[in-house]
Amino acid sequence: MTITALNEVVTTPVRTVSPDTYRKGMAGLAAAVNIVTTEGPQGPAGFTATAVCSVSDDPATLLVCLNRGASVHSIFAQSQHLAINTLTSVQSPLSNLFGGKAPMAERFESGAWATSANGSPVLSDAAVCFDCVITEIKNVATHDVLFCQVTDIRLNEEADALLYYQRGYHSVCQDV
Amino acid sequence: MTITALNEVVTTPVRTVSPDTYRKGMAGLAAAVNIVTTEGPQGPAGFTATAVCSVSDDPATLLVCLNRGASVHSIFAQSQHLAINTLTSVQSPLSNLFGGKAPMAERFESGAWATSANGSPVLSDAAVCFDCVITEIKNVATHDVLFCQVTDIRLNEEADALLYYQRGYHSVCQDV
Repeated sequence: MTITALNEVVTTPVRTVSPDTYRKGMAGLAAAVNIVTTEGPQGPAGFTATAVCSVSDDPATLLVCLNRGASVHSIFAQSQHLAINTLTSVQSPLSNLFGGKAPMAERFESGAWATSANGSPVLSDAAVCFDCVITEIKNVATHDVLFCQVTDIRLNEEADALLYYQRGYHSVCQDV
Repeated sequence: MTITALNEVVTTPVRTVSPDTYRKGMAGLAAAVNIVTTEGPQGPAGFTATAVCSVSDDPATLLVCLNRGASVHSIFAQSQHLAINTLTSVQSPLSNLFGGKAPMAERFESGAWATSANGSPVLSDAAVCFDCVITEIKNVATHDVLFCQVTDIRLNEEADALLYYQRGYHSVCQDV
């Protein structure tokens, strides 16, 4: 089988590592935990994501990766805005709730939620809230990469951070 | 001025936050620290990056964002492979070295480097090394997003993690 090159960079088929090997490797890449939210046709929707990444500061742009098989996928793919709510170390229960199978309405019963200028749910005591408009969506393998421009940021100066690392929750330790 | 929509998602101009505000917000998003390497026409090249993100486990795909103004940009844009070397908590000096202005040859004099199957430099005592081929490059704002398929992973089971958070280095703390 030949993999068709998407652009001029790839010229030969690629033999990648297995999904299991990949996940073991990625478990060693510590990441902040975020709840990504939007307002869908049926009300607020959100999911837990570590795959959030800075792209550019001008214009302020970040990206979030979303599995096309996720139950919330169609809601976000059809939305024009989303918010990234970066969690603090005491908010792992919210991470579990939004990363599980609970119905959307039930998820938003936990935590204190407000609505951003763009119309996305924002978590009042998150470490950081990035209010965003979705500017482009790109299909890559099983996921959509949502490129977002940041229209507003709310910082909680007192907050710490919730990390996901080696398949468990952690906080940030002292300077090294 | 009207911003031209890149696809059907954006329909109105976007007023983003300032670069400074964006950077302050992003300082609250803790991230793992990595040295991204390749073999260029003049020898090994590498830079420090926190903008590394998992995309998919099948085929195993990650992305890394690289400023098009970076001195190493043309080397990576013309390469077909790279390695992600995820650092441990004792490797902040290497992070500073590869994030600074030192000439490439000088950077690789620190640390124990080997060569991956794809030909990229890999750091022997990194926490994780992802050996990758670059499958696509996408321009977004000031940066290129390099999509990479992972062809090999080397894990250091004993390793911890180096974090960048609130503009300083940290390690991962206890379970929360």
